[in-house]
Amino acid sequence: MPLWPIHQKNRIKRVIISTYQAASGAGAAAMEELVESTRANLNGQVYTPKVMPHPYAFNLFNHNTAVDPETGYNDEETKVIKETRKIFEDDRIAVGVTCVRVPVLRAHCEAITFECEKPISEDQVRALLAAAPGVRIVDDRAANYFPMPIDASGQDDVLVGRIRKDLSDPSGHSISIFVAADQLLKGAALNAVQIAELLPERVMA
Amino acid sequence: MPLWPIHQKNRIKRVIISTYQAASGAGAAAMEELVESTRANLNGQVYTPKVMPHPYAFNLFNHNTAVDPETGYNDEETKVIKETRKIFEDDRIAVGVTCVRVPVLRAHCEAITFECEKPISEDQVRALLAAAPGVRIVDDRAANYFPMPIDASGQDDVLVGRIRKDLSDPSGHSISIFVAADQLLKGAALNAVQIAELLPERVMA
Repeated sequence: MPLWPIHQKNRIKRVIISTYQAASGAGAAAMEELVESTRANLNGQVYTPKVMPHPYAFNLFNHNTAVDPETGYNDEETKVIKETRKIFEDDRIAVGVTCVRVPVLRAHCEAITFECEKPISEDQVRALLAAAPGVRIVDDRAANYFPMPIDASGQDDVLVGRIRKDLSDPSGHSISIFVAADQLLKGAALNAVQIAELLPERVMA
Repeated sequence: MPLWPIHQKNRIKRVIISTYQAASGAGAAAMEELVESTRANLNGQVYTPKVMPHPYAFNLFNHNTAVDPETGYNDEETKVIKETRKIFEDDRIAVGVTCVRVPVLRAHCEAITFECEKPISEDQVRALLAAAPGVRIVDDRAANYFPMPIDASGQDDVLVGRIRKDLSDPSGHSISIFVAADQLLKGAALNAVQIAELLPERVMA
């Protein structure tokens, strides 16, 4: 969602994403498993995973969807690639992605590096995001305050911060950001409402 | 470390890294804070962070080093960029990196995407890593079993898996991997010993 206003001004050619996905994306049972296995761990007890494929307490692992034996990508990653192209109405956008479950109860995070067709600055990205509905910039370098799951939980807004030049692309076409959003809201009901609201605007654009 | 044997055969031009760093990197007090704040959270109690800048229980945040007000990079990221160039004896290597603290007790993980000078295949990477001392391939797609902090903890080996084509680079020059290693071992004493052991070989190469 934070890439859309940028893409409209300066086409995004390539995106590399690493996710930090919460238990909530796998449902209430996964959240309970994270809580109960962590409690057991703290009490020195053994806990046998029931919902997740691996121990979840103070651990992280590849996303719990099936991994394509040919490509090595898990189904969540394939979905991210397909949906990005669909939402952006751009089949050429190149997407690389790694989806990981982290021991967070609610709200997903993503470290995103994107490359635009034309040069782009931090300030341009900040201005575009500041004007984007549903996006809140959380980017306080002095206080080391950036998007966090606990701040995104229960919020409609997608939090975006760590807006900075991608130092691996000296051409000045690439920016890195860090995003946190409550996918229970953003991925489901609210999203449907917002898409409906945006439709006339999109059709007119 | 897993990039080194690849770089020797096919120069790595660019690396994009997202880290999933454990409490242990910040010392015993940070590990205790993760344990105690998680226990408090599970018991419905308030816990005021003492060591980390943000609540750590079931949460994640930007690395707890200072953030450069100009570049927006934290000191850990700057260190990764500098040390990669130094260890690779290659000042041209382009590095983009996002360092994140996750609520894991011990062992760091990294999602790494790298681009080589010449085309490179998954199989070539797998063969180079299989022959690399101190590297263990953990890459079972059928079982969804890949490197995890709990498996890396207390191990000398760096675990590498999720070896696959970077789908955002259709040129066939880029590969993505996921790495887990116990930095208490790998970042300190063992590393010094291994570097000493490697020196004659390096001088002769």
